[in-house]
Amino acid sequence: MNIGIIGYGYWGPNLVRNFSRVEDCTVKTCADLDPKRREAMREKYPYVKATAYYKEILGDPEILGVVIATPVETHFSLAKEALERGKHVLIEKPITRTSEEARELVGIAKKRELVLMVDHTFEYSPAINKIKEIIKSSELGKIFTIDMIRVNLGLFQKKVNVVWDLAPHDISILHYLLEDMPEKAWGIGDAHVQDGIEDDAHVSLLFKSNIRANLHVSWLDPCKIRRITIVGNKKMLVFDDTLKEGKITIYDKGVTIEKNRIPMQPYYTTLEEWELVYRSGESYSPEINGKEPLLTMAEHFVECVQKNRSPVSDGVSGWRVIKVMEAVQESLKNSGKEVGVR
Amino acid sequence: MNIGIIGYGYWGPNLVRNFSRVEDCTVKTCADLDPKRREAMREKYPYVKATAYYKEILGDPEILGVVIATPVETHFSLAKEALERGKHVLIEKPITRTSEEARELVGIAKKRELVLMVDHTFEYSPAINKIKEIIKSSELGKIFTIDMIRVNLGLFQKKVNVVWDLAPHDISILHYLLEDMPEKAWGIGDAHVQDGIEDDAHVSLLFKSNIRANLHVSWLDPCKIRRITIVGNKKMLVFDDTLKEGKITIYDKGVTIEKNRIPMQPYYTTLEEWELVYRSGESYSPEINGKEPLLTMAEHFVECVQKNRSPVSDGVSGWRVIKVMEAVQESLKNSGKEVGVR
Amino acid sequence: MNIGIIGYGYWGPNLVRNFSRVEDCTVKTCADLDPKRREAMREKYPYVKATAYYKEILGDPEILGVVIATPVETHFSLAKEALERGKHVLIEKPITRTSEEARELVGIAKKRELVLMVDHTFEYSPAINKIKEIIKSSELGKIFTIDMIRVNLGLFQKKVNVVWDLAPHDISILHYLLEDMPEKAWGIGDAHVQDGIEDDAHVSLLFKSNIRANLHVSWLDPCKIRRITIVGNKKMLVFDDTLKEGKITIYDKGVTIEKNRIPMQPYYTTLEEWELVYRSGESYSPEINGKEPLLTMAEHFVECVQKNRSPVSDGVSGWRVIKVMEAVQESLKNSGKEVGVR
Amino acid sequence: MNIGIIGYGYWGPNLVRNFSRVEDCTVKTCADLDPKRREAMREKYPYVKATAYYKEILGDPEILGVVIATPVETHFSLAKEALERGKHVLIEKPITRTSEEARELVGIAKKRELVLMVDHTFEYSPAINKIKEIIKSSELGKIFTIDMIRVNLGLFQKKVNVVWDLAPHDISILHYLLEDMPEKAWGIGDAHVQDGIEDDAHVSLLFKSNIRANLHVSWLDPCKIRRITIVGNKKMLVFDDTLKEGKITIYDKGVTIEKNRIPMQPYYTTLEEWELVYRSGESYSPEINGKEPLLTMAEHFVECVQKNRSPVSDGVSGWRVIKVMEAVQESLKNSGKEVGVR
Repeated sequence: MNIGIIGYGYWGPNLVRNFSRVEDCTVKTCADLDPKRREAMREKYPYVKATAYYKEILGDPEILGVVIATPVETHFSLAKEALERGKHVLIEKPITRTSEEARELVGIAKKRELVLMVDHTFEYSPAINKIKEIIKSSELGKIFTIDMIRVNLGLFQKKVNVVWDLAPHDISILHYLLEDMPEKAWGIGDAHVQDGIEDDAHVSLLFKSNIRANLHVSWLDPCKIRRITIVGNKKMLVFDDTLKEGKITIYDKGVTIEKNRIPMQPYYTTLEEWELVYRSGESYSPEINGKEPLLTMAEHFVECVQKNRSPVSDGVSGWRVIKVMEAVQESLKNSGKEVGVR
Repeated sequence: MNIGIIGYGYWGPNLVRNFSRVEDCTVKTCADLDPKRREAMREKYPYVKATAYYKEILGDPEILGVVIATPVETHFSLAKEALERGKHVLIEKPITRTSEEARELVGIAKKRELVLMVDHTFEYSPAINKIKEIIKSSELGKIFTIDMIRVNLGLFQKKVNVVWDLAPHDISILHYLLEDMPEKAWGIGDAHVQDGIEDDAHVSLLFKSNIRANLHVSWLDPCKIRRITIVGNKKMLVFDDTLKEGKITIYDKGVTIEKNRIPMQPYYTTLEEWELVYRSGESYSPEINGKEPLLTMAEHFVECVQKNRSPVSDGVSGWRVIKVMEAVQESLKNSGKEVGVR
Repeated sequence: MNIGIIGYGYWGPNLVRNFSRVEDCTVKTCADLDPKRREAMREKYPYVKATAYYKEILGDPEILGVVIATPVETHFSLAKEALERGKHVLIEKPITRTSEEARELVGIAKKRELVLMVDHTFEYSPAINKIKEIIKSSELGKIFTIDMIRVNLGLFQKKVNVVWDLAPHDISILHYLLEDMPEKAWGIGDAHVQDGIEDDAHVSLLFKSNIRANLHVSWLDPCKIRRITIVGNKKMLVFDDTLKEGKITIYDKGVTIEKNRIPMQPYYTTLEEWELVYRSGESYSPEINGKEPLLTMAEHFVECVQKNRSPVSDGVSGWRVIKVMEAVQESLKNSGKEVGVR
Repeated sequence: MNIGIIGYGYWGPNLVRNFSRVEDCTVKTCADLDPKRREAMREKYPYVKATAYYKEILGDPEILGVVIATPVETHFSLAKEALERGKHVLIEKPITRTSEEARELVGIAKKRELVLMVDHTFEYSPAINKIKEIIKSSELGKIFTIDMIRVNLGLFQKKVNVVWDLAPHDISILHYLLEDMPEKAWGIGDAHVQDGIEDDAHVSLLFKSNIRANLHVSWLDPCKIRRITIVGNKKMLVFDDTLKEGKITIYDKGVTIEKNRIPMQPYYTTLEEWELVYRSGESYSPEINGKEPLLTMAEHFVECVQKNRSPVSDGVSGWRVIKVMEAVQESLKNSGKEVGVR
């Protein structure tokens, strides 16, 4: 199966490398407008045809699947054209600028029976899948709250703010883990370096299941933090993606109410009666396999095309993320007011 | 100078211990309603008179200063009575339940020329004072944003939520560091363990100087985190209070705009032109003296009484914290809507 | 039961505090030659009689047990006198300067049927006991090697080197964990700050069971490290005593030989055939109770006296540590030559 | 300038990649006996000629420099043949199996005026060069001791033990930093997994300058540790190569003797007089550039060949490392006895 890739920017080399590793898949052509990038591509991947014209990819009948890795504002028109020319399409996150655009792509793909997939890479990450497995096993109990921090001194974007850049990762992770959608969204953030481009933001999402998730996304932190804390009523889980080993730790910690309990340590509190029991037991870090998520994602796209299956991160899931993003963005532009996710 | 302490609960032993260490200061009497606590007090501090009746302290002409370390709902009436009987008063944070009460105490103290102080312990912490010194020296440049995390599996309170329990620390630190008041406040949080008592909350404060501070306070995190990140346009500072050494680190990191800059690494970005320069240089951890903040606080109270001075954390500063807390609380009860600090 | 303590130096306050907490035990008298220390003692523990004369303790028929917490060069004569006056004796580590002295004390105690105990505090530590339990359960498999690091910028001693100061902890831990004695010892170290007093040393011990333990003890490291790594053929354990939580981690890691195995990754190695399989699975941190080891130790001494039992860390175990220390010291003075533990 | 590389094993791809990045340098041919490796090479580097015959490289008059990256037992004969055919030679560490062989290669290279270089990669690492700069600036003062830990669950070798595998790194670093040679060596280690192949070892080296370095090298540790601690009489330095940022920290810590000093804290020690002063001030982490050491090394080889210069890590420096290794190995085989480096 031949693949064409449109856009050889920041993420492009990773896409070429991983699709090249997928069995029965060949990266035939890769398009980029920048001659320097094409040159670099030729040097690194001499077996891939470099072109300035994406239409060369869309017009090539040997190419079944098209990967769109261009700036977000071009996603919609490129994907639409690709779908209309009968190509299966994989789009880098976020799928489009607006939910309206995403909905339209979903419609075209459905009508033409083509695969439309969005690269929510984390849904293919072994660690996130391990967390999903743990949640599904009820080991954490009922989930109370999820806290996510994704900050570092980072790669500013010029046309999108930090929320559009980073939060789609977290929102797609949340959708994937909870199999639920937020009903309400709040966003607070400020632009410090570039006018009008928020570079530090806090987001709050309230899910239908009443679980709250809070996100801190920032390009302005001196330390790289990639951390998810999931608090359940039975156990608590911390995922630290900056660690090389032991990324996930499950703590057998919690607090429960026990009526008429006599406190052991009278000076521990100012209350006469005290009914809460703290539990702090063993913690453990499960084994996580080391497979590169992008390779799993690439394999999944190829498999969905070949077997005519619907991807885990299909167009609808891309559209759902944009729905939430739009609500967050509206809140952000209105000083953090509560916005419903319609 | 003789001191009386009302309340020998969670914080009581620390107060007795530290006031006992202050030169020319004696803890004469300590009152608590609970006989078990009085017994424990007698065993540990046999030289302190234990009593069930706080009025014994207020009526003792030898006692100049009274420390109120009882549950917050009793602060106002006890402090009022103490001031009216001519005692200098130190109150555990938060000073009172309402700003109205705090204002009244401030008025009485002023009228009677008595010291009214609130125990904002962190204002006496060597680390916070070092941070203040660094900010004042302009080493960080213009401050963009401050992020504060104060979470752990923690000591639930029964009558106040996690915001009232923990955020006064952060708000008093912010007031102290920035010498500024927030104009607007947002609070989002939920109650998971005890009905109506929020145990996990995010707070956002926008200061007059346009600096934003975001706080995460929680009793429901498996890890103890005590972290402040201050992002300036010149440098960035991280304070991690859980470390034994190197609590403060200043990073020579930042990002600046430089027009017409030719990017060195064309594949680093999807943009044709790129004007941002990232800087990542040396970092350092200043020396911090190890003096216990509570001792400095105790010495300061005694000194203010003896020399008739106004404390750093005086009644007005206590009242200011409550003003902010009321705005946060109002936002919290209204789904995070923006509330002005009046 | 009344206890007398001789020596109120660095460790003295901890001993008074913990023995005061033991049920049915009273610290009656505490002797120290230094008037300033006696004054401090009186202030902190007004219910303990402070004296300059240790003979007051030895001559007091109400005192059953004597704790010796003086400089090591006085241990022998004080302990001998105490035993001869019929007292049960607890000695701070190391028990004596020489194994000859230790042996003599053991003999006297045995003859007079008195308890002779040495304060190998770590044998009463919940973490070390948890490690012993794990080793006994065979979870780690056959133990290959133990690496111990006990370094920091530390408390120099004037009359003993860093090996005599710190290694007795590690040696008593090893004896306790392995229930075995080293047969051979090596020691290499140097004196940098004070002439003739080694302040940084590496020690190697080969046990009868063929397990090797390597120790690094130093007063000259900028970081405080307290770390034990136990490598077994099934699992590996790391104990980090500087952590507040998760001090012990057990790693399901190892390497095994598998003949005729075809390597998966031909570029991983320069060997044509490759027979080793690496295993890296789950890790976990068991719960450890938080009881202060010194309290358990104090309770154990009192219990042994009252019930006429032999302590876990009895005189013989103190003597064994000194036997090993003597071999280490001999090696240290002979440029690291192998010395048999006789 | 054309380069040929003999051996495309574990390290081979890194060598091809980096030499390809050197300006004016082309990797023309790469030889490996294994057809699978040649296939992988062709796929990844289609512009490099893959061959099974190293003589094709040696016989190619267009090739000026030859890189030898084969198992150590073949280094000598390959390097000798290459030099005799007039090629400049770079050899992976360790340069040869014996110092005799290394000396012979040095002689041939000198006679024929060819560059003979050994890939002591760390001598080209920005961090090690920063450390050298710090030492040279006398910021640390007189160096007392150096402690090095290089352990993890690691890549066993079949024909060489862990000392031959890992210690050459540390020894070349030490030679480079101290510009001095050890006079005496000690080595203690054991074989646990493969008979006769030590997999865990401690090495001690005493330099002419009286500085002692202690090394722990192991393939049997559950954690990856890459740590160097340099203790000077003025300051102390820690290098942690597993960190992404702040790899080097300089601590303004130390201890000095001050006669007739009155101790501030009488209970801090058991000594009547106390003359040591501890200092613990600011710490900092210098900026380190991120250039890949292997690229610097490759550039240096090409530059030395082109400009007829002697490399930093020349044959003599390779020979010196082997001299030390032979002494360590002799000690290892004789239970840690002291061995002079001749």
